[in-house]
Amino acid sequence: MPTVVNSTVQQYQMCIDACIKCMQACEECLTSCLKEPDVQSRSHCINMLRDCADICAMASQWISRGSMYVKQFCQLCATICEACATECAKYQDNHCQQCADFCRECAEECRKMAA
Amino acid sequence: MPTVVNSTVQQYQMCIDACIKCMQACEECLTSCLKEPDVQSRSHCINMLRDCADICAMASQWISRGSMYVKQFCQLCATICEACATECAKYQDNHCQQCADFCRECAEECRKMAA
Amino acid sequence: MPTVVNSTVQQYQMCIDACIKCMQACEECLTSCLKEPDVQSRSHCINMLRDCADICAMASQWISRGSMYVKQFCQLCATICEACATECAKYQDNHCQQCADFCRECAEECRKMAA
Amino acid sequence: MPTVVNSTVQQYQMCIDACIKCMQACEECLTSCLKEPDVQSRSHCINMLRDCADICAMASQWISRGSMYVKQFCQLCATICEACATECAKYQDNHCQQCADFCRECAEECRKMAA
Repeated sequence: MPTVVNSTVQQYQMCIDACIKCMQACEECLTSCLKEPDVQSRSHCINMLRDCADICAMASQWISRGSMYVKQFCQLCATICEACATECAKYQDNHCQQCADFCRECAEECRKMAA
Repeated sequence: MPTVVNSTVQQYQMCIDACIKCMQACEECLTSCLKEPDVQSRSHCINMLRDCADICAMASQWISRGSMYVKQFCQLCATICEACATECAKYQDNHCQQCADFCRECAEECRKMAA
Repeated sequence: MPTVVNSTVQQYQMCIDACIKCMQACEECLTSCLKEPDVQSRSHCINMLRDCADICAMASQWISRGSMYVKQFCQLCATICEACATECAKYQDNHCQQCADFCRECAEECRKMAA
Repeated sequence: MPTVVNSTVQQYQMCIDACIKCMQACEECLTSCLKEPDVQSRSHCINMLRDCADICAMASQWISRGSMYVKQFCQLCATICEACATECAKYQDNHCQQCADFCRECAEECRKMAA
């Protein structure tokens, strides 16, 4: 990873990495949910995953660029990741359970950034 | 990283990782270029970095979701990364030289995906 | 709309407008498809809509900034819009039929840009 | 524009339109700022424009999809648009003055959505 030089930058890097893992898990989980036999009961979960994937992708860009709005953006990202984790945790598939874990980790890193 | 299970998926993961490193390097490099005393002569480079950061971010989302258009998207991403590498390599700053390296690695991984 | 001054710029503006209408129609259609009783048979359509919404949104940004890669980006956007139109046209709901129309109009404008 | 059926939807449409005009103005203004002889003194403005263009683009997607987080997203979008308007208004070029106007209008529509 580029330019990891001190503790602030390490925290940035941890948050970028968490956002990317969460984005990836959400995109994969959404694709998998669409193939499940009970997809009809998953529309709320799928809508959460759309938002969560998008905000995590943009958060990783904004942290990278050193945006002035990183704290506020990460605070909203944390809220959405937490809600997405709660929703995904309701489904027993591996992809949902794993996604819930990545969402929770991302929420935690984003809260640290927002603090 | 989520769900790495076989060689195709490993290739996907390598491309996602390369796209993210390249996106991050481009966003950082753009921010740094804006602070350089010769920023006026860097407008072409900065415009390349905008496009390269964006397409790498979206490529990582599309690979993650298993888009039908991954090959075509990665082919265009490779073209842009290669051009961005050539442009960044002209500047002697660390951030430009590092960014050129990440762009070249991403171009290579994207070409493999597009093959 | 900002700065419409001549025929090239008018063509740019028509393509931006078509991309935005298509993005909006795809996002709305995806949300509506998730509520349909036959959502299970629509996973391919939903995956097309995800890609189409994203590429149209980015196309509108790249045209606005005057990216060097507008032609190549719009060419890929046209391919995806055309495929999304074909897929949406299979469903009889208003939202799918309307979305197919917006996708076709966007494909046409993007082909003009790519020419 | 698709599916304008009542006052809530009209407000949604007005906000989407304002976000798109603001995104376009920001992307155009950023490209123009990079060509100005005093670009070196505009780095803060350029960084604001990057964030403002991105958040307006994503806001238009989230409003279109009917995201649960529209209010919170639009509130942050309004904050960033307002700050970008203030920054752009400092420069006397047409592109900066026009961009400031589009940013202010978008901030106003986003505040209505967030209310």
